[in-house]
Amino acid sequence: MSALEIFAVNGIGEVRPGDDLASLILDSDADLADRDCLVITQKVVSKAENRIVEVDPDDPLSHKPLVERESVRVLRRRGDLIISETSHGFVCANAGIDLSNVERGQAALLPIDSDRSARGIRDRLKARAGVDVGVVVSDTFGRPWRRGVTDIAIGCAGIAAIVDLRGSTDTFGRELKVTEVAAVDEIAAAADLVMGKAQGIPAAIVRGLREEWFRPSCVVGEIVRPPAEDLFR
Amino acid sequence: MSALEIFAVNGIGEVRPGDDLASLILDSDADLADRDCLVITQKVVSKAENRIVEVDPDDPLSHKPLVERESVRVLRRRGDLIISETSHGFVCANAGIDLSNVERGQAALLPIDSDRSARGIRDRLKARAGVDVGVVVSDTFGRPWRRGVTDIAIGCAGIAAIVDLRGSTDTFGRELKVTEVAAVDEIAAAADLVMGKAQGIPAAIVRGLREEWFRPSCVVGEIVRPPAEDLFR
Repeated sequence: MSALEIFAVNGIGEVRPGDDLASLILDSDADLADRDCLVITQKVVSKAENRIVEVDPDDPLSHKPLVERESVRVLRRRGDLIISETSHGFVCANAGIDLSNVERGQAALLPIDSDRSARGIRDRLKARAGVDVGVVVSDTFGRPWRRGVTDIAIGCAGIAAIVDLRGSTDTFGRELKVTEVAAVDEIAAAADLVMGKAQGIPAAIVRGLREEWFRPSCVVGEIVRPPAEDLFR
Repeated sequence: MSALEIFAVNGIGEVRPGDDLASLILDSDADLADRDCLVITQKVVSKAENRIVEVDPDDPLSHKPLVERESVRVLRRRGDLIISETSHGFVCANAGIDLSNVERGQAALLPIDSDRSARGIRDRLKARAGVDVGVVVSDTFGRPWRRGVTDIAIGCAGIAAIVDLRGSTDTFGRELKVTEVAAVDEIAAAADLVMGKAQGIPAAIVRGLREEWFRPSCVVGEIVRPPAEDLFR
């Protein structure tokens, strides 16, 4: 049986503004090898990049003005819930801002350029440890029509956001019509299975992905669907 | 490092109406153990359950009347594309009907009750091999706002569709607000990383999931969002 392995990364500890995530990962129990894919959560990337803002700790809605500021378009409102589009083009609740796993009185905004965040981590891992890995920055989004949240990719580097099966054939030799698989979203979802929101584990390693998936790529350019293509905006 | 392993299942071969999928899996190279989660694609489940219908092999749109018949509500149309809700409550393109990996002149409909399909496979695996596993029936869906398809769960048995973290706390001791993780959707996505549309591998084993996730569950009851809750229907 061919296998994929997913390891939780332990020992990263609390991340602070200015921290070098690549160094924290290399000092953890992560045992990175070439062609591994490192998945790291948005929350620690936002902390390292100082995308933390102060909010009133006694007002559970104090981050709502930030949501308006971080949104380029509001799609839906219901009560306190805002579904909006961020400057990156992500459509999510509260512009991706949340209050979990940050200190009381703080809110974490999304990284300004989450693909650049992934590239920076990948480049520093290569420079410091000589390893050639893919990096995915993951976040937790809800979905329309289905209950429950799943982790998806908001940034990537060195690993294909979209795997294009165009031109390949199914087992009956017919050309495949559904051709583009969002590989980084599946990688982010897989990594969440070992991380777990409540365990405070902010990174995982996915080992055994197909070699041809390792290439320069980005989430915003490849996965964000332009409004003109979109039936639900 | 704590680890999750995902194995592709090889040797299932071509599935025909009336085939017992549990037997095919036990005769394959799958090495199932208690607390494994078996992920099996909708396509082979539909074939085994004879949800195959004849279509005109020379008309690429000949399955469209089936799409209308299998839909309870049409959400969007653009050209030939129909986004609709199925009797199960799934919102997807073409009511989940497609023509890939079936013989020319055939189309595969979704299983009538995909949770029951999962339960049947789980029960037969237990009866025949004495293994107590979770079973997920997966399918490939597009998403609004994001390009590329990912695999999600359309049925499950013996494994939690939704993992409820309500009441658990984050690393700062604050009660988590985002509480419900769609575990089976993340499991289906993870399994797709080793299956691959073009490889014709219709099943995978996910090993190492948390013990407390193994419980009676279903996708339609736990994951399908009732229209009244939904902002995009």
